[in-house]
Amino acid sequence: MDGCVFCKMVAGEIPVTKIYEDEVVLAFLDIGPISDGHTLVIPKTHSPQVHACDPEVLSAVVARLGRIAGAVVAAMGVEGYNVLVNNGSAAGQVVDHLHFHIIPRKMGDRVLSGWPSYKYKAGQIEEIAGRIRANL
Amino acid sequence: MDGCVFCKMVAGEIPVTKIYEDEVVLAFLDIGPISDGHTLVIPKTHSPQVHACDPEVLSAVVARLGRIAGAVVAAMGVEGYNVLVNNGSAAGQVVDHLHFHIIPRKMGDRVLSGWPSYKYKAGQIEEIAGRIRANL
Repeated sequence: MDGCVFCKMVAGEIPVTKIYEDEVVLAFLDIGPISDGHTLVIPKTHSPQVHACDPEVLSAVVARLGRIAGAVVAAMGVEGYNVLVNNGSAAGQVVDHLHFHIIPRKMGDRVLSGWPSYKYKAGQIEEIAGRIRANL
Repeated sequence: MDGCVFCKMVAGEIPVTKIYEDEVVLAFLDIGPISDGHTLVIPKTHSPQVHACDPEVLSAVVARLGRIAGAVVAAMGVEGYNVLVNNGSAAGQVVDHLHFHIIPRKMGDRVLSGWPSYKYKAGQIEEIAGRIRANL
Protein backbone atom coordinates (compact mmCIF):
# COMPACT_ATOMS: atom_id res chain seq x y z
CA MET A 1 0.00 0.00 0.00
CA ASP A 2 1.24 3.51 -0.86
CA GLY A 3 2.98 5.14 2.07
CA CYS A 4 3.24 1.93 4.15
CA VAL A 5 6.73 1.53 5.61
CA PHE A 6 6.45 -2.26 5.79
CA CYS A 7 5.24 -2.52 2.15
CA LYS A 8 8.36 -0.52 1.24
CA MET A 9 10.50 -3.01 3.18
CA VAL A 10 8.83 -5.88 1.29
CA ALA A 11 9.54 -4.05 -1.99
CA GLY A 12 13.19 -3.57 -1.01
CA GLU A 13 12.83 0.22 -0.93
CA ILE A 14 13.72 0.42 2.78
CA PRO A 15 16.53 -1.83 4.08
CA VAL A 16 15.88 -4.39 6.82
CA THR A 17 18.04 -6.73 8.88
CA LYS A 18 16.53 -9.84 7.40
CA ILE A 19 15.97 -13.08 9.27
CA TYR A 20 13.89 -14.96 6.71
CA GLU A 21 11.95 -14.36 3.50
CA ASP A 22 9.78 -16.43 1.19
CA GLU A 23 6.77 -15.85 -1.05
CA VAL A 24 4.43 -15.23 1.90
CA VAL A 25 6.39 -13.53 4.69
CA LEU A 26 9.30 -11.26 5.50
CA ALA A 27 10.92 -11.60 8.94
CA PHE A 28 13.40 -9.02 10.24
CA LEU A 29 14.77 -7.58 13.47
CA ASP A 30 12.85 -4.71 15.07
CA ILE A 31 15.14 -1.66 15.13
CA GLY A 32 13.52 -0.55 18.39
CA PRO A 33 13.57 -3.87 20.24
CA ILE A 34 12.17 -4.45 23.72
CA SER A 35 14.55 -7.42 24.12
CA ASP A 36 17.57 -8.61 22.12
CA GLY A 37 16.46 -10.63 19.09
CA HIS A 38 12.97 -9.02 18.99
CA THR A 39 11.76 -10.11 15.55
CA LEU A 40 8.88 -8.99 13.33
CA VAL A 41 7.13 -11.39 10.95
CA ILE A 42 4.89 -9.73 8.37
CA PRO A 43 2.74 -10.93 5.48
CA LYS A 44 3.99 -9.54 2.16
CA THR A 45 0.48 -8.49 1.22
CA HIS A 46 -0.84 -5.43 3.05
CA SER A 47 -3.46 -6.00 5.71
CA PRO A 48 -3.86 -3.73 8.71
CA GLN A 49 -5.07 -6.07 11.47
CA VAL A 50 -5.86 -9.70 12.34
CA HIS A 51 -9.63 -9.46 11.89
CA ALA A 52 -9.22 -7.65 8.55
CA CYS A 53 -6.75 -10.19 7.18
CA ASP A 54 -7.74 -12.98 4.79
CA PRO A 55 -7.76 -16.12 7.00
CA GLU A 56 -5.73 -17.98 4.36
CA VAL A 57 -3.00 -15.35 4.44
CA LEU A 58 -3.02 -15.35 8.24
CA SER A 59 -2.75 -19.15 8.29
CA ALA A 60 0.14 -19.11 5.83
CA VAL A 61 2.01 -16.53 7.93
CA VAL A 62 1.47 -18.41 11.17
CA ALA A 63 2.51 -21.73 9.60
CA ARG A 64 6.01 -20.14 9.37
CA LEU A 65 5.96 -18.61 12.84
CA GLY A 66 6.96 -21.69 14.83
CA ARG A 67 10.14 -22.30 12.85
CA ILE A 68 11.19 -18.65 13.14
CA ALA A 69 10.35 -18.51 16.86
CA GLY A 70 12.33 -21.71 17.42
CA ALA A 71 15.38 -20.16 15.73
CA VAL A 72 15.04 -16.97 17.80
CA VAL A 73 14.86 -18.99 21.03
CA ALA A 74 17.84 -21.15 20.09
CA ALA A 75 19.96 -18.21 18.93
CA MET A 76 19.22 -15.99 21.91
CA GLY A 77 19.42 -18.74 24.53
CA VAL A 78 16.20 -17.57 26.15
CA GLU A 79 13.66 -19.43 28.28
CA GLY A 80 10.52 -18.14 26.60
CA TYR A 81 8.96 -15.67 24.17
CA ASN A 82 5.82 -13.73 23.52
CA VAL A 83 4.04 -13.75 20.18
CA LEU A 84 2.14 -10.47 20.02
CA VAL A 85 0.03 -8.63 17.47
CA ASN A 86 -1.07 -5.12 18.39
CA ASN A 87 -4.25 -4.24 16.51
CA GLY A 88 -5.14 -0.55 16.43
CA SER A 89 -3.29 2.38 18.02
CA ALA A 90 -5.27 1.84 21.26
CA ALA A 91 -3.47 -1.53 21.44
CA GLY A 92 -0.03 -0.07 20.66
CA GLN A 93 0.05 -0.61 16.89
CA VAL A 94 2.39 1.94 15.30
CA VAL A 95 2.75 0.67 11.70
CA ASP A 96 -0.61 -0.04 10.05
CA HIS A 97 0.55 -3.31 8.41
CA LEU A 98 -0.16 -6.52 10.32
CA HIS A 99 2.96 -7.75 12.15
CA PHE A 100 3.70 -10.54 14.59
CA HIS A 101 6.23 -9.58 17.25
CA ILE A 102 8.39 -12.44 18.54
CA ILE A 103 9.79 -11.16 21.84
CA PRO A 104 12.52 -13.26 23.52
CA ARG A 105 12.08 -13.48 27.31
CA LYS A 106 14.21 -14.41 30.27
CA MET A 107 12.89 -15.11 33.76
CA GLY A 108 12.43 -11.88 35.72
CA ASP A 109 13.38 -9.58 32.81
CA ARG A 110 10.41 -7.27 33.51
CA VAL A 111 9.65 -6.94 29.77
CA LEU A 112 5.84 -6.89 29.27
CA SER A 113 5.59 -7.62 32.98
CA GLY A 114 2.26 -5.90 33.71
CA TRP A 115 -0.72 -8.28 33.88
CA PRO A 116 -3.47 -6.38 35.72
CA SER A 117 -5.95 -9.24 36.05
CA TYR A 118 -9.17 -8.97 38.05
CA LYS A 119 -12.44 -10.85 38.59
CA TYR A 120 -15.81 -10.20 36.93
CA LYS A 121 -18.75 -9.21 39.09
CA ALA A 122 -21.57 -11.78 39.50
CA GLY A 123 -23.39 -12.34 36.20
CA GLN A 124 -21.04 -10.12 34.22
CA ILE A 125 -19.09 -12.91 32.50
CA GLU A 126 -22.26 -14.52 31.09
CA GLU A 127 -23.61 -11.15 29.91
CA ILE A 128 -20.36 -10.36 28.07
CA ALA A 129 -20.09 -13.85 26.56
CA GLY A 130 -23.65 -13.55 25.25
CA ARG A 131 -22.83 -10.22 23.64
CA ILE A 132 -19.73 -11.64 21.91
CA ARG A 133 -21.58 -14.77 20.72
CA ALA A 134 -24.29 -12.55 19.25
CA ASN A 135 -21.62 -10.82 17.14
CA LEU A 136 -20.04 -14.00 15.77
CA MET B 1 -2.93 -34.39 28.19
CA ASP B 2 -3.39 -35.78 31.69
CA GLY B 3 -3.52 -33.03 34.29
CA CYS B 4 -3.92 -30.20 31.77
CA VAL B 5 -6.66 -27.78 32.82
CA PHE B 6 -7.38 -26.69 29.24
CA CYS B 7 -7.59 -30.31 28.00
CA LYS B 8 -10.16 -30.86 30.76
CA MET B 9 -12.12 -27.83 29.50
CA VAL B 10 -12.03 -29.27 25.96
CA ALA B 11 -13.28 -32.59 27.35
CA GLY B 12 -16.12 -30.83 29.21
CA GLU B 13 -14.75 -31.84 32.61
CA ILE B 14 -14.22 -28.23 33.70
CA PRO B 15 -16.92 -25.67 32.79
CA VAL B 16 -16.10 -22.62 30.66
CA THR B 17 -17.98 -19.53 29.57
CA LYS B 18 -17.97 -20.49 25.94
CA ILE B 19 -17.70 -18.05 23.04
CA TYR B 20 -17.19 -20.49 20.18
CA GLU B 21 -16.38 -24.13 19.54
CA ASP B 22 -15.78 -26.31 16.51
CA GLU B 23 -13.67 -29.37 15.67
CA VAL B 24 -10.40 -27.41 15.92
CA VAL B 25 -10.75 -24.75 18.61
CA LEU B 26 -12.48 -23.82 21.85
CA ALA B 27 -12.88 -20.10 22.64
CA PHE B 28 -13.96 -18.91 26.08
CA LEU B 29 -13.70 -15.94 28.42
CA ASP B 30 -10.65 -15.72 30.68
CA ILE B 31 -11.87 -15.85 34.29
CA GLY B 32 -9.01 -13.56 35.35
CA PRO B 33 -9.33 -10.94 32.57
CA ILE B 34 -7.03 -7.96 32.12
CA SER B 35 -9.85 -6.18 30.26
CA ASP B 36 -13.57 -6.90 29.85
CA GLY B 37 -14.15 -9.46 27.10
CA HIS B 38 -10.62 -10.93 27.41
CA THR B 39 -10.98 -14.15 25.40
CA LEU B 40 -8.83 -17.27 25.09
CA VAL B 41 -8.71 -19.31 21.88
CA ILE B 42 -7.12 -22.75 22.23
CA PRO B 43 -6.49 -25.69 19.91
CA LYS B 44 -8.38 -28.79 21.08
CA THR B 45 -5.23 -30.88 20.71
CA HIS B 46 -2.61 -30.36 23.38
CA SER B 47 0.50 -28.46 22.40
CA PRO B 48 2.47 -26.38 24.88
CA GLN B 49 3.87 -23.54 22.74
CA VAL B 50 3.91 -21.98 19.26
CA HIS B 51 7.22 -23.48 18.11
CA ALA B 52 6.21 -26.93 19.38
CA CYS B 53 2.82 -26.87 17.65
CA ASP B 54 2.16 -28.61 14.34
CA PRO B 55 2.07 -25.74 11.77
CA GLU B 56 -1.15 -27.16 10.31
CA VAL B 57 -2.88 -27.03 13.70
CA LEU B 58 -1.56 -23.52 14.31
CA SER B 59 -2.83 -22.40 10.90
CA ALA B 60 -6.24 -23.90 11.50
CA VAL B 61 -6.53 -22.14 14.88
CA VAL B 62 -5.46 -18.78 13.48
CA ALA B 63 -7.81 -19.08 10.52
CA ARG B 64 -10.60 -18.77 13.14
CA LEU B 65 -8.97 -15.99 15.10
CA GLY B 66 -10.05 -13.06 12.92
CA ARG B 67 -13.74 -13.88 13.13
CA ILE B 68 -13.59 -14.29 16.90
CA ALA B 69 -11.54 -11.09 17.36
CA GLY B 70 -14.01 -9.20 15.16
CA ALA B 71 -16.90 -10.36 17.36
CA VAL B 72 -15.04 -9.37 20.54
CA VAL B 73 -14.31 -5.90 19.14
CA ALA B 74 -17.91 -5.39 17.99
CA ALA B 75 -19.41 -6.66 21.25
CA MET B 76 -17.14 -4.68 23.54
CA GLY B 77 -17.16 -1.48 21.50
CA VAL B 78 -13.39 -1.17 21.75
CA GLU B 79 -10.89 0.59 19.52
CA GLY B 80 -8.28 -2.15 19.36
CA TYR B 81 -7.04 -5.45 20.73
CA ASN B 82 -3.88 -7.42 21.35
CA VAL B 83 -3.43 -10.98 20.17
CA LEU B 84 -0.89 -12.50 22.51
CA VAL B 85 0.65 -15.92 23.09
CA ASN B 86 2.91 -16.30 26.12
CA ASN B 87 5.35 -19.13 25.55
CA GLY B 88 7.12 -20.41 28.66
CA SER B 89 6.79 -19.22 32.24
CA ALA B 90 9.53 -16.60 31.61
CA ALA B 91 7.06 -15.06 29.14
CA GLY B 92 4.08 -15.25 31.52
CA GLN B 93 2.59 -18.58 30.43
CA VAL B 94 0.63 -20.09 33.32
CA VAL B 95 -1.24 -22.98 31.69
CA ASP B 96 1.02 -25.22 29.62
CA HIS B 97 -1.47 -25.59 26.72
CA LEU B 98 -1.04 -23.15 23.81
CA HIS B 99 -3.56 -20.31 24.04
CA PHE B 100 -4.16 -17.11 22.10
CA HIS B 101 -5.26 -14.20 24.29
CA ILE B 102 -7.55 -11.67 22.59
CA ILE B 103 -7.34 -8.58 24.79
CA PRO B 104 -9.80 -5.73 24.05
CA ARG B 105 -8.19 -2.29 24.32
CA LYS B 106 -9.34 1.30 24.68
CA MET B 107 -7.15 4.34 24.15
CA GLY B 108 -5.21 5.18 27.31
CA ASP B 109 -6.42 2.13 29.27
CA ARG B 110 -2.88 1.37 30.53
CA VAL B 111 -3.38 -2.38 29.97
CA LEU B 112 -0.11 -3.90 28.65
CA SER B 113 1.18 -0.33 28.48
CA GLY B 114 4.88 -1.00 29.07
CA TRP B 115 7.00 -1.03 25.89
CA PRO B 116 10.62 -0.59 27.03
CA SER B 117 12.19 -0.18 23.57
CA TYR B 118 15.84 0.71 23.05
CA LYS B 119 18.45 0.82 20.29
CA TYR B 120 21.10 -1.80 19.49
CA LYS B 121 24.76 -0.84 19.75
CA ALA B 122 26.72 -0.55 16.48
CA GLY B 123 27.11 -3.95 14.80
CA GLN B 124 24.91 -5.73 17.32
CA ILE B 125 21.82 -6.07 15.11
CA GLU B 126 23.76 -7.81 12.29
CA GLU B 127 25.47 -10.13 14.76
CA ILE B 128 22.13 -11.16 16.30
CA ALA B 129 20.43 -11.58 12.92
CA GLY B 130 23.28 -13.83 11.77
CA ARG B 131 22.91 -15.98 14.86
CA ILE B 132 19.16 -16.36 14.32
CA ARG B 133 19.55 -17.15 10.60
CA ALA B 134 22.10 -19.83 11.49
CA ASN B 135 19.43 -21.52 13.65
CA LEU B 136 16.69 -21.53 11.02
